[in-house]
Amino acid sequence: MSQPYEESQLYRIRHSAAHVMAQAMLERFPEAHIAIGPPIEDGFYYDFDLPRPIQEEDLAWVEGRMKEIVKGDHPFSVREVEVSEALDLFRDQPYKVELINDLVHGRTDENGKEIAAPASKLTIYTQDTFTDLCRGPHVASTKDINPDALSITFKPPAGAYWRGDEKRPMLTRIYGTAWETPEQLADYLHRLEEAKRRDHRYLGEKLDLFILDPLVGKGLPLWLPKGAILRDTLERWLRQLLLDSGYEPVVTPHIGSIELYKTSGHYPYYKDTQYAPIDVDGELFLLKPMNCPHHIMIYKSELRSFRDLPVRYAEYGTVYRYEKSGQLHGLTRVRGFTQDDAHLFVTPEQLESEYISTVKLAQYVMGTLGMTDFRARVGIRDPKSDKFIGDDALWETATKAIINACEQLGLDYTVEEGEAAFYGPKLDLVFHDVLKREWQLGTVQVDPNLPERFELEYVDSDGQRKRPVMIHRALFGSVERFIGIMIEHFGGAFPTWLAPVQAVLIPIADRHIEYLQGVVAKMRARGLRVEVDTSNNRMGAKIAMAREQQVPYMLIAGDRDVAAEAVSVRLRTDEDRGQMPLEDAIAHIVKVVESHALDL
Amino acid sequence: MSQPYEESQLYRIRHSAAHVMAQAMLERFPEAHIAIGPPIEDGFYYDFDLPRPIQEEDLAWVEGRMKEIVKGDHPFSVREVEVSEALDLFRDQPYKVELINDLVHGRTDENGKEIAAPASKLTIYTQDTFTDLCRGPHVASTKDINPDALSITFKPPAGAYWRGDEKRPMLTRIYGTAWETPEQLADYLHRLEEAKRRDHRYLGEKLDLFILDPLVGKGLPLWLPKGAILRDTLERWLRQLLLDSGYEPVVTPHIGSIELYKTSGHYPYYKDTQYAPIDVDGELFLLKPMNCPHHIMIYKSELRSFRDLPVRYAEYGTVYRYEKSGQLHGLTRVRGFTQDDAHLFVTPEQLESEYISTVKLAQYVMGTLGMTDFRARVGIRDPKSDKFIGDDALWETATKAIINACEQLGLDYTVEEGEAAFYGPKLDLVFHDVLKREWQLGTVQVDPNLPERFELEYVDSDGQRKRPVMIHRALFGSVERFIGIMIEHFGGAFPTWLAPVQAVLIPIADRHIEYLQGVVAKMRARGLRVEVDTSNNRMGAKIAMAREQQVPYMLIAGDRDVAAEAVSVRLRTDEDRGQMPLEDAIAHIVKVVESHALDL
Repeated sequence: MSQPYEESQLYRIRHSAAHVMAQAMLERFPEAHIAIGPPIEDGFYYDFDLPRPIQEEDLAWVEGRMKEIVKGDHPFSVREVEVSEALDLFRDQPYKVELINDLVHGRTDENGKEIAAPASKLTIYTQDTFTDLCRGPHVASTKDINPDALSITFKPPAGAYWRGDEKRPMLTRIYGTAWETPEQLADYLHRLEEAKRRDHRYLGEKLDLFILDPLVGKGLPLWLPKGAILRDTLERWLRQLLLDSGYEPVVTPHIGSIELYKTSGHYPYYKDTQYAPIDVDGELFLLKPMNCPHHIMIYKSELRSFRDLPVRYAEYGTVYRYEKSGQLHGLTRVRGFTQDDAHLFVTPEQLESEYISTVKLAQYVMGTLGMTDFRARVGIRDPKSDKFIGDDALWETATKAIINACEQLGLDYTVEEGEAAFYGPKLDLVFHDVLKREWQLGTVQVDPNLPERFELEYVDSDGQRKRPVMIHRALFGSVERFIGIMIEHFGGAFPTWLAPVQAVLIPIADRHIEYLQGVVAKMRARGLRVEVDTSNNRMGAKIAMAREQQVPYMLIAGDRDVAAEAVSVRLRTDEDRGQMPLEDAIAHIVKVVESHALDL
Repeated sequence: MSQPYEESQLYRIRHSAAHVMAQAMLERFPEAHIAIGPPIEDGFYYDFDLPRPIQEEDLAWVEGRMKEIVKGDHPFSVREVEVSEALDLFRDQPYKVELINDLVHGRTDENGKEIAAPASKLTIYTQDTFTDLCRGPHVASTKDINPDALSITFKPPAGAYWRGDEKRPMLTRIYGTAWETPEQLADYLHRLEEAKRRDHRYLGEKLDLFILDPLVGKGLPLWLPKGAILRDTLERWLRQLLLDSGYEPVVTPHIGSIELYKTSGHYPYYKDTQYAPIDVDGELFLLKPMNCPHHIMIYKSELRSFRDLPVRYAEYGTVYRYEKSGQLHGLTRVRGFTQDDAHLFVTPEQLESEYISTVKLAQYVMGTLGMTDFRARVGIRDPKSDKFIGDDALWETATKAIINACEQLGLDYTVEEGEAAFYGPKLDLVFHDVLKREWQLGTVQVDPNLPERFELEYVDSDGQRKRPVMIHRALFGSVERFIGIMIEHFGGAFPTWLAPVQAVLIPIADRHIEYLQGVVAKMRARGLRVEVDTSNNRMGAKIAMAREQQVPYMLIAGDRDVAAEAVSVRLRTDEDRGQMPLEDAIAHIVKVVESHALDL
């Protein structure tokens, strides 16, 4: 990987562009008070306390002025100043004065712990006429900022409370972006546009997949029929794959006694992300935060022999985690989500091969879905932290098994200390979507510790009782989140086998409806999901609507098609395949569906 | 139907037998204190405060003595006595004294409301040497009790607190049963034995279908792989049937904002059976007590046209209801259960035909499962009660639609006042199992009121906005409970298509295993659930085990079978079908599965 963002030239460019924006804004609004202006991913922002609401023409003027300043080749000069000088310099800027005073006294968190030492000297950066309190770094001169790779924007109601505190003033946040070349800027703006077009919340509603309703509750999606069909198709496919791979299905309840989670250690370990317990006749129940203790109790319900192992239990298990309402986001951040969860109970000798086949299965699943660009992130224990339970030797063996598997499978992987689960090391699958964004999906974790806590056993071939190792794994991770990511990755144009409607049949005139109703019956009998568009719209509008809905196939019938027992085939890509004999068209679609083909 | 049980001769026989048992018990234990002894379904009991634990020989002696007393032809004579005489008569029996004092003062419930008026006179019944405080009725003479149709029993730890109050003494409860003929007694004892043999809690464990674990939580079953497969097969079959009948699947969350249930009226109406709300950032959520409000919000998410109706949403929706821990029972009384729920939104004109097709679907489902003996119980509003919401006229139309449907379908139905849902009248399916026990299953309810509360609309052909009617319906009722009932009805011998394992392949010697592994592969490719028994057990033990597990088919292979590419077919009924060519055997089982045949 390349250098960290914070050390890159792009970071300096953006940080410097923020200063230039503040300069231009102060020229436009001399009475404005300036707050802070950091670089962020893909750009920068600056917060202002403005005397009046900002208008489009202000933005245009500021952007134009920024380009002029940039072209002026003004050096960024840094100077260390005494606190008194800084206070004098910024005497008209109350937010800066507050920042200076904080820096002087250092900062402590709410428990009184120091998070920044008191400063006796401060640094200021100046370009042209503008000076800001700043630690840098910046570019050498404004000319290092490309005026043609610069853009600013204000999206009402964009604003932010000073220091995120809703009792402090609401400031106007102006976002900007800056790149090294105009091409990079254009590419970024294109990706931004694409991300908006592919936003799963937007597409979820447009394609009738799911809705969120405040009366039902925040972060609790309702799956509409088309979404429910997509989800079911995906779930059933994976379920069959698991059965064929020696997994057994189980079903466990959505609430569980708190005693179970105390035994597992999930309570109080995950307390902050769990909902408050429900008291039932003095017994406390949690909305299930994890499926593993339930699967463990099933394993434990009878004495196992080495001949029974590996035991592999799979379940679509819905779990509940607390998320702040501000963090909720469509399907990708919800309050109840369904893990494609499975737990494997294996002998120590089986661990490595089972681990490898689990990761291979993940590769196969992602490959079939056409989502092949992913890397592995191996989370290991931080030996200095006390949040990881269990024996050193067990951690070591488990970690080695994961690294070995990565090596053997030739995975692109990184190792991150402290990112393990509390009970064992793990491998997370990180997927890069078509816009190169990273999404964490499934996880494959080795757990030598819960078998200890639950005293799990099997009788080995020598008659001795031994402890199995557990593998916790989810391939999609959360079904809801995975589908959210799929919607964005495919822009709603799902592979045919997953499309809620696989073909729309379009009559050129009403007299062709009867013929198409016969076609529908034939196609449904072959297991295809098909609809006839009998609306009063004209053919062009019907085709446009089917394309909007990302229906893979449009089968059009007019007199010539009816006479020939044929259909005219159009694709959602707008490709026109012309007239095809009806049986051939159906056979083709059936083949595409059954082979899980990505192409049409 | 015949006369009520309370007015039957059997009721008098049992009530009288309880007195005879008390007489015999007092002869055996002269220091015993007697409490109460009512007739119950299928028998009677009497509670005693005994000086020592009861033994088998006591019971034998008491039963023998009861038969003697009965044969003595002692008349039951009744006499009205003053309170003072009663108190004197029972001066050595403190529980009777307490009862007399209660009767004198009348009884009030905890709110001070009178539930029995004070009595000034009491009645006593005497047979032979025994007198009891009693309102009757009794038989004329002990000779009306058939000594050969009488039996008593004590099952440790059978006992009951005096007046059900755990602060009062624990009494010894002796159960008895009495019938008119020895044949009736034998039949009853047989049914009792059968019920025990078919108990779904016993079979659930024996057949590896489900377990209950106190650490997971009371009333929260864990489905083992075989149970999960049975459940999934049943659910998928019904799901496909619904899709083919024009239903659309939806998926909704397991918790919901309390505001949603306030709007629907489920809160506070069902408050007593709901779990306490969960507070999330000041928003209150309930474990979902009902699916209907969620489906309503989906209906409401877009403007509907008359052309869209009926809209039929189906979901396996898990809901949570409070049950006292003492009421919990295997799968049939649980704390979280899954309704095969659906909601139909129809125009008033469509109501009757949709109602009829819904009940027809229920008939088809039950028929396919071979569970054809059921009746319908129509629950209508009690016009005097205030627990039913909504307009009189709406109730009347809805009730008429249900009665009409019953008439048209020629259903065996009864009408019960006050048994409606709070929002509308309903029809409950009451199933009679193979032991003639009644089980309430699904329900089909007409609801004109929730559409009002949620202001649901559709645009009619005249352009006017109108209110749809809702049908709430579940065919199984609760999937958990339904499977519990199925287990008992079939005694674990499920129709082949539902059997978790459809065939066990049994090698006569180890050298036949390879052949059978080929057979397994062939059968699995045909979608059958098959296992090879490779254990070290002898063939007889393998067959016995497969029969114990109620596996429909046993395919046995020895040298002769391998040579002929055949298998020898045995059934769980112990029928021996002899050698069959392998392909024929497989084809037969596939046909049985695909046709959902009840016979093997």
